Amino acid sequence: MFKTFIGPVEDEASVVYLRPETAQGIFVNFENVLNTTRKRLPFGIAQTGKSFRNEVTTGNFIFRSREFEQMEIEYFVKPGTDKQWFEYWVEERLNWYASLGIKRENLKLRPHAKEELAHYARECSDINYLFPMGWAELEGIANRGDFDLVQHAASSGKGLSYYDEEAKEHIVPYIIEPSAGVDRTFLAVLCDAYDEDEAEGEKRVLLHLHPDLAPIKAAVLPLSRKEHLASFAQEIYADLRQQWMVQYDDAQSIGRRYRRQDEIGTPFCVTVDFESLEDKQVTIRERDSLRQIRVPIESLKSTLAAKLAGEDLFVLPEGGKIWKE
Amino acid sequence: MFKTFIGPVEDEASVVYLRPETAQGIFVNFENVLNTTRKRLPFGIAQTGKSFRNEVTTGNFIFRSREFEQMEIEYFVKPGTDKQWFEYWVEERLNWYASLGIKRENLKLRPHAKEELAHYARECSDINYLFPMGWAELEGIANRGDFDLVQHAASSGKGLSYYDEEAKEHIVPYIIEPSAGVDRTFLAVLCDAYDEDEAEGEKRVLLHLHPDLAPIKAAVLPLSRKEHLASFAQEIYADLRQQWMVQYDDAQSIGRRYRRQDEIGTPFCVTVDFESLEDKQVTIRERDSLRQIRVPIESLKSTLAAKLAGEDLFVLPEGGKIWKE
Repeated sequence: MFKTFIGPVEDEASVVYLRPETAQGIFVNFENVLNTTRKRLPFGIAQTGKSFRNEVTTGNFIFRSREFEQMEIEYFVKPGTDKQWFEYWVEERLNWYASLGIKRENLKLRPHAKEELAHYARECSDINYLFPMGWAELEGIANRGDFDLVQHAASSGKGLSYYDEEAKEHIVPYIIEPSAGVDRTFLAVLCDAYDEDEAEGEKRVLLHLHPDLAPIKAAVLPLSRKEHLASFAQEIYADLRQQWMVQYDDAQSIGRRYRRQDEIGTPFCVTVDFESLEDKQVTIRERDSLRQIRVPIESLKSTLAAKLAGEDLFVLPEGGKIWKE
Repeated sequence: MFKTFIGPVEDEASVVYLRPETAQGIFVNFENVLNTTRKRLPFGIAQTGKSFRNEVTTGNFIFRSREFEQMEIEYFVKPGTDKQWFEYWVEERLNWYASLGIKRENLKLRPHAKEELAHYARECSDINYLFPMGWAELEGIANRGDFDLVQHAASSGKGLSYYDEEAKEHIVPYIIEPSAGVDRTFLAVLCDAYDEDEAEGEKRVLLHLHPDLAPIKAAVLPLSRKEHLASFAQEIYADLRQQWMVQYDDAQSIGRRYRRQDEIGTPFCVTVDFESLEDKQVTIRERDSLRQIRVPIESLKSTLAAKLAGEDLFVLPEGGKIWKE
């Protein structure tokens, strides 16, 4: 752990440590949350935040660093239901990575053998990802039993329990803890999304980012900088910006601009050409398939919204047509 | 600053300090951002993150703490335009607090006198808020001139400048820096929102949170727990949950439930009664005015969306009516 000193004097009395995990803050607040939110078992408390570990060996990009962003859920359940909730969370967390667009074949569950379980864990499974340097841990899901609440209660001298209205008794909940690294997830998403292929006769680099994760949802590209086309395209850009992070790019050839958006994982490019001035339609180009459709400007927003939400590119709005396969 | 040691040995060679502000990371990345984003002056880089200061006196709730969340923008401008951009950001930042619902009379601008300016600042203004303990700083906006880029360039031996295409020369941009505390803003929002008044003949505590900041946007409250009404209300709840953070509460009297939502600043309560089963309408109650309107369930989502976006409560959807003034 990282040791530091509170206050001006560096002596033993002022020694404190940076937290090596976010979980303990949740246990300390368990009773507070219980009293203010009127939750019944099972319920969870989730937190994301910085943790610090004085690791000797860091590296593999941002896989292991001394300061990292952690996200943890402490899910409190009735003893006896812990095995079932442990399985629920393993499944749920695997699905979460898949829902971010990470390929299922790059994810693997690694249940811990009895002899490698930490002293507090009744059961534990890691979710591993196939990084370029090999399989490595993204997340650990542990059944911690009543270890944490019993420990905190013993140290503080203040009981931590839950009153079960039905059974009319105080119980100490068991805890299922999914504990994941935000930076590792970010690295996995990038590794998984990175691709090189060929488009329009040249090599292209692209990120197959899930639309939810792409920082830029769409780019508006006018075919020319000519005044009347530019102001027309700027209007479309201003309209889309109300709803999403959108870029406007009019520098260099249209091919170069597509490549730039491919590289940063922008799912859709909206091309505005001279015909757009006449027919009030624009072309939407999809990053992965390179297919293009032409749609009326008035249905551009709803079409993009549907496509960003995962609908197939070829559900055309009224008045739209396939432009380029 | 907080001093700590990297690695297993605690000697002078391993001493590091926790960052006391987020700004320096932006200056270090200035050239990187410039080279990858093709931005032209003026442009800004914004960052939020933890900072740590070994304060001797902490307190006034979360006003001053040793670990805090900071948000800073470094806005790079052409020398000579800095005064104008400084004024722009002072105005823009004041408006930002007002847009969060903070009362304008509780905000005050305090320009620094020449003799109190920090050595790096050409001009500086604080945005102060009238906390319960008196006027105190929420944010400082400084015109830092070229101090930071020149300092970083001198220390690293690597020039940090911007090539101006028009003037065909390298220039060192001036920097306007709005630097604000997230925790202080949070405290100001809470102080400003807290209120006590009377409703339905009893004292109530409420938070006048701006809808954008209210953690729960609406609560669905069935008038009774009877099966057919409950399942009907649950359907409405499930539908609203798709779009917003919504609570479902069926415990105790409707008055108690309104009070609970008032206390946490929920802008709207949706009451489902036995008549709702017949006329397919529900009642929306507004937190601040206590006024109620009755609207068809099919236009509930669009009505809430419009009201959450700030439209007047009494723009009724088709088929809606005023229920209670």
